[in-house]
Amino acid sequence: MTQANDLKSWQHQAQAQTELLLARLMPSENQTPHTLHQAMRYVTLGGGKRLRPLLVLAAAELGSADPAAVEAAMAAVEMIHVYSLVHDDMPEMDNDSLRRGKPTCHVQYDQATALLTGDALQTQAFDILSRPTGLPAERQLKMVALLAQAAGSLGMAGGQAIDLANVGNAMTQAQLEHMHRLKTGALIRAAVGLGALACTDLDDEARRRLDAYAERLGLAFQVIDDVLDCEADTATLGKTAGKDQEADKPTYVKLMGLAPARRYAETLIAEALEQIAPFGGKAAHLRQLAEFVVARKN
Amino acid sequence: MTQANDLKSWQHQAQAQTELLLARLMPSENQTPHTLHQAMRYVTLGGGKRLRPLLVLAAAELGSADPAAVEAAMAAVEMIHVYSLVHDDMPEMDNDSLRRGKPTCHVQYDQATALLTGDALQTQAFDILSRPTGLPAERQLKMVALLAQAAGSLGMAGGQAIDLANVGNAMTQAQLEHMHRLKTGALIRAAVGLGALACTDLDDEARRRLDAYAERLGLAFQVIDDVLDCEADTATLGKTAGKDQEADKPTYVKLMGLAPARRYAETLIAEALEQIAPFGGKAAHLRQLAEFVVARKN
Repeated sequence: MTQANDLKSWQHQAQAQTELLLARLMPSENQTPHTLHQAMRYVTLGGGKRLRPLLVLAAAELGSADPAAVEAAMAAVEMIHVYSLVHDDMPEMDNDSLRRGKPTCHVQYDQATALLTGDALQTQAFDILSRPTGLPAERQLKMVALLAQAAGSLGMAGGQAIDLANVGNAMTQAQLEHMHRLKTGALIRAAVGLGALACTDLDDEARRRLDAYAERLGLAFQVIDDVLDCEADTATLGKTAGKDQEADKPTYVKLMGLAPARRYAETLIAEALEQIAPFGGKAAHLRQLAEFVVARKN
Repeated sequence: MTQANDLKSWQHQAQAQTELLLARLMPSENQTPHTLHQAMRYVTLGGGKRLRPLLVLAAAELGSADPAAVEAAMAAVEMIHVYSLVHDDMPEMDNDSLRRGKPTCHVQYDQATALLTGDALQTQAFDILSRPTGLPAERQLKMVALLAQAAGSLGMAGGQAIDLANVGNAMTQAQLEHMHRLKTGALIRAAVGLGALACTDLDDEARRRLDAYAERLGLAFQVIDDVLDCEADTATLGKTAGKDQEADKPTYVKLMGLAPARRYAETLIAEALEQIAPFGGKAAHLRQLAEFVVARKN
């Protein structure tokens, strides 16, 4: 097998692991309330790039990690991500009808169910991350705190509020970056940070490098999101293309133009790769994910 | 001061303590995103019975409790409660315009802000409960897990889903109780359980009694809620009266009649008091809160 094939097969295998993990950690549809559990499984299972869980996994490869803590973090960070998508797609927010190639939750079920599904998914994330693992409890409490800070009003939810407040507004690149640092960046950094916390043998310098990698990666991810919203069609994206344009949302493409936006993402990824260069072969999957972020088609 | 006055003054003082605590633990309005933080403070501060934080405090009086852990639990459980009210009041759920005598969040702001406010409040609860206190980390991780289980799809959010699925349906008393055990009971039990976990010196028998107390109290609370929805006017209630009738929701009053429902609540409270009798004077405030639950006017 070539190295490229090997990496691709790692990504597929890690996605399959995430899927199994989520299927196991989500309440069964046979449990009351059936519709809520069905909806929670509908939005969480069966697809997605699983970038955040894969980042947890890849970061945890840098040290000696507790497998149960890694799995808990993978599931928890994805549940937070999916809850945010479910609420973000609702009519009062982005009003989107397609996600991961399927009808969004409020379309497939109804708005009340989508509201509760997002709510319960968020709780489920903290439920899973607070169950005992092989890590010392102090360390695990830090993981809970890290995820909460990344998801809250000074992180992801705060970024969505800023996004909402700025539809139709002109934003400078600094303002746009601040918004995305919170909206998507915070959770991507948390994913890498959780993987690092699951290792008991990483020093401060390693953590600092990992965080710098994640910070660049998070920004690049969003720049590419804007590029794809412009370039790709709905079928490839699995969500409605051209939404940002239509909603008059500030984007990197509007601010910089299409080609410079793509070049900016490539620069950010080069910086991310530089940060993890000292880790050598152990960081192969982190490198792979960084390259995937700029090369992805959806 | 008479004993009754003394107890009343404890309740007022504990409510004031809760208010100060929440004001301190909520992000400032001066912090970006301003509107989100303003809305989080709007829905959380300035009122409410604070039953759940008071239950944490009163349960923690039974043993030797860590003050920081007690305060964290008080704030966290109230934030979970308030987030559920904010989402429950939204048009896709109960569509209510009045709460604690003020316009509900989506009326005062807008639906998107109400959605994000509830989301961010839930996260804030886990953020606060995962910060280091004087308790061993194992114990604190258990507190996080308890709150998450109580709030999730097998607890509070699950109860709301069952409620939603049964509007217009006839329910047996057993079905109604199952719903309320999840919808309001789970968080009330969690409040008492968190207070107990904050003590390092309570034995299993004490915990079991506390949980049995909380279970009866939670049911009685809901029965009285149904009674008040029928009896009280909107001004006294601080939320729209007669909503359950109008929405064709199953209630204890419809199932049992008004006077028998009130008698049922009184029986439950008597059982709750019996459970905590062995604690003697240390349980004075738990007794006070049980009596408050049946005597309350809103």
